[in-house]
Amino acid sequence: MVAIDSSAFHDRASTTDTVLAQSSALGGRFTFSLLREDASTFGRRGRVETTRGSIETPIFMPVGTQATVKTLSPQEVRATGAQIILANTYHLMLRPGADLIRQAGGLHAFMNWHGPILTDSGGFQVFSLAAVNKVKEEGVTFASHIDGSRWTISPESVIDLQLAYGSDIMMQLDHVLGLPAERKAIVDATERSGRWLDRAVAAYDDRDGAATRSVLFGIQQGGMEKDLRIASARRVAQTDVAGCAVGGLSVGESKDVMAEMLEISTPELPRNKPRYLMGVGSPEDLWHGVARGIDMFDCVLPTRTARNGGLYTPDGRITISKSIWKHVHAPIDETCDCVACSEYTAAYLHHLFRAGEIFGMRLASIHNLRYLARQMEEIRAALDAGAFATAFANFDARYRPIASRGTPGNPVSALGEQRS
Amino acid sequence: MVAIDSSAFHDRASTTDTVLAQSSALGGRFTFSLLREDASTFGRRGRVETTRGSIETPIFMPVGTQATVKTLSPQEVRATGAQIILANTYHLMLRPGADLIRQAGGLHAFMNWHGPILTDSGGFQVFSLAAVNKVKEEGVTFASHIDGSRWTISPESVIDLQLAYGSDIMMQLDHVLGLPAERKAIVDATERSGRWLDRAVAAYDDRDGAATRSVLFGIQQGGMEKDLRIASARRVAQTDVAGCAVGGLSVGESKDVMAEMLEISTPELPRNKPRYLMGVGSPEDLWHGVARGIDMFDCVLPTRTARNGGLYTPDGRITISKSIWKHVHAPIDETCDCVACSEYTAAYLHHLFRAGEIFGMRLASIHNLRYLARQMEEIRAALDAGAFATAFANFDARYRPIASRGTPGNPVSALGEQRS
Repeated sequence: MVAIDSSAFHDRASTTDTVLAQSSALGGRFTFSLLREDASTFGRRGRVETTRGSIETPIFMPVGTQATVKTLSPQEVRATGAQIILANTYHLMLRPGADLIRQAGGLHAFMNWHGPILTDSGGFQVFSLAAVNKVKEEGVTFASHIDGSRWTISPESVIDLQLAYGSDIMMQLDHVLGLPAERKAIVDATERSGRWLDRAVAAYDDRDGAATRSVLFGIQQGGMEKDLRIASARRVAQTDVAGCAVGGLSVGESKDVMAEMLEISTPELPRNKPRYLMGVGSPEDLWHGVARGIDMFDCVLPTRTARNGGLYTPDGRITISKSIWKHVHAPIDETCDCVACSEYTAAYLHHLFRAGEIFGMRLASIHNLRYLARQMEEIRAALDAGAFATAFANFDARYRPIASRGTPGNPVSALGEQRS
Repeated sequence: MVAIDSSAFHDRASTTDTVLAQSSALGGRFTFSLLREDASTFGRRGRVETTRGSIETPIFMPVGTQATVKTLSPQEVRATGAQIILANTYHLMLRPGADLIRQAGGLHAFMNWHGPILTDSGGFQVFSLAAVNKVKEEGVTFASHIDGSRWTISPESVIDLQLAYGSDIMMQLDHVLGLPAERKAIVDATERSGRWLDRAVAAYDDRDGAATRSVLFGIQQGGMEKDLRIASARRVAQTDVAGCAVGGLSVGESKDVMAEMLEISTPELPRNKPRYLMGVGSPEDLWHGVARGIDMFDCVLPTRTARNGGLYTPDGRITISKSIWKHVHAPIDETCDCVACSEYTAAYLHHLFRAGEIFGMRLASIHNLRYLARQMEEIRAALDAGAFATAFANFDARYRPIASRGTPGNPVSALGEQRS
């Protein structure tokens, strides 16, 4: 494992950077600084500072759903260049439980990751994974996907859960709707998400959140309805939160629709706060998201794809178990500095996947996370140099994504596929 | 990961040690030196020197059946204190194939392990894993357990395979018999193993083995028949091999029977060559084996047990998924210096196993290998200090092995269970 000291990242801007806009929370212990704006796109270069370290944006955040980034050690995740990871409120409340994590000294101590952690509120999982769920204004009652036990969460209780975990960035509970749905249902869920945001903020204040190390982000919803997206974005923008998330995208809609939703709604979000596009995504979606003003991304896709033998390269995604790799006694990607590429050959990875060996999944996961981290480094460098559009065009001309399988049937299942 | 430089092992004897007996091969590039003999048992302290590094004996060798120690990186295996690992001729000939490994520059380069490698000949797997097998004097024809394809191996071909891998220590092809069997069949298989040993030596000489980096070990068989064990041991002892293995034990017989077989046969083996007990084993079996004059051991048990949540501690084997560990916010073993014990709690490991997370298998595998490496360090230190019997008694008074499940049904399946 090549140890990567994050303080040595080439793109770490100096403290004398010009700050175009800024916001802060926790009495100044959490800040977002907007450092540069791209001339030809909505691309932004920024920095989030937390009590557990800085995050250069735009950033991709690896997902450690159950208090572990699947197959990897925290040191390995860090060595890919990760500056912040995600964990999941829904999964952790069911197993091992918030009380146990609090007793362990919080999630950072429990899982031995000492950088920043963002926790999803659980709204998405309740609506996509739980066997049964019933929404009332008060909150959501659902049956655990593990053992069928009944649970209720509310905008207030998910704040309590995330405070117990000790999350650096907490998300509000939102009402995530499976699509397609009738407009009336989308209006209803979007407005409820707005009311739940107000309750989340009130709960945060009530628990004296500003005295903790945790900040709260709001979530914009609105389905694929333009007017609802704009209204929801405005509502989040007017609320006293540390950052603004875009939820309910990358759920099976076309890339054009996702782009449109971002284009109409991100301009409504405050310039001086970080913007987080939830559950995205693929290498190409990250470029598209940055071009539309997004600062933060997360997705299980790179690690899940890796476990299935899908590896990102500058030319596109490859499938390492295919026989064309059997005799390739060279790295998957000569330009990559990850452990998988610097210490092993494509032929060895092919063998590990064919033989069903877990070490193959590990190497593939490291590679894909490092691939995305390097891509984000390239994006940040391009933004710094005022060359984002050119860099994006170069990527687009070369990278060949594998066409998505489509998402027939229950769109909520498609949600689950994308974000676990 | 705590990096462990093997040159810093506290028990590494100086080059000025008195040598009681010695043997060499490869024109002196492979040597075994007997350094001490225990006064009250058959315990021996020694050193094997290979072209890829020294091995302090008695030693436990982790098993990397398919060119990977399951779930772990080579660096992690090394950091547990491993000085040599095993790989498997049968598995590797089927997948990825010997030609591919030769093209890759040999097994060491292919799997990125640069210490010594011992390869099992495949005899055991052919008789335990292959769907069909037919023994003739010439060799064995069998059907691959992967795809049913037909293969034939002979005493000569397994030498060629192991030379293609670049093994540091090669094993002869032996005829491994499922027990119980009629005495006539045991006689037949034992005598055939003897004839195959002669052919292995002839093939080794024919291929100019002494000019490579690979030595050959012979294998003693004989079932649980005392006279056959003794005769087989004498035959191996009279043969020009670099080391002597004891095969066909730990296959479901009682611990008393295994002990008796070792007690009657190891005295027949040359004092100046290393002795390797194949497919053993558990913490307690290693102590018993050392007491009966064994220098080298291998087994998949510690890593397989680990993947099922079984962890060795000074008090015996525990099952980490049991609910008693849920709230234990302390290491599994306070005295252990492995990554699992120094960086994580029992509660976290319990969570990982309950949640089905691969990182749990990794930590457990590291812990069990480190446990056995530390046990062997303790054994070597006790032999050095002339205190082996006391150390063994202390272990025996404290460690509580979990009773084996017994091995009903096909004893060959039991073999497979024990050694993959």
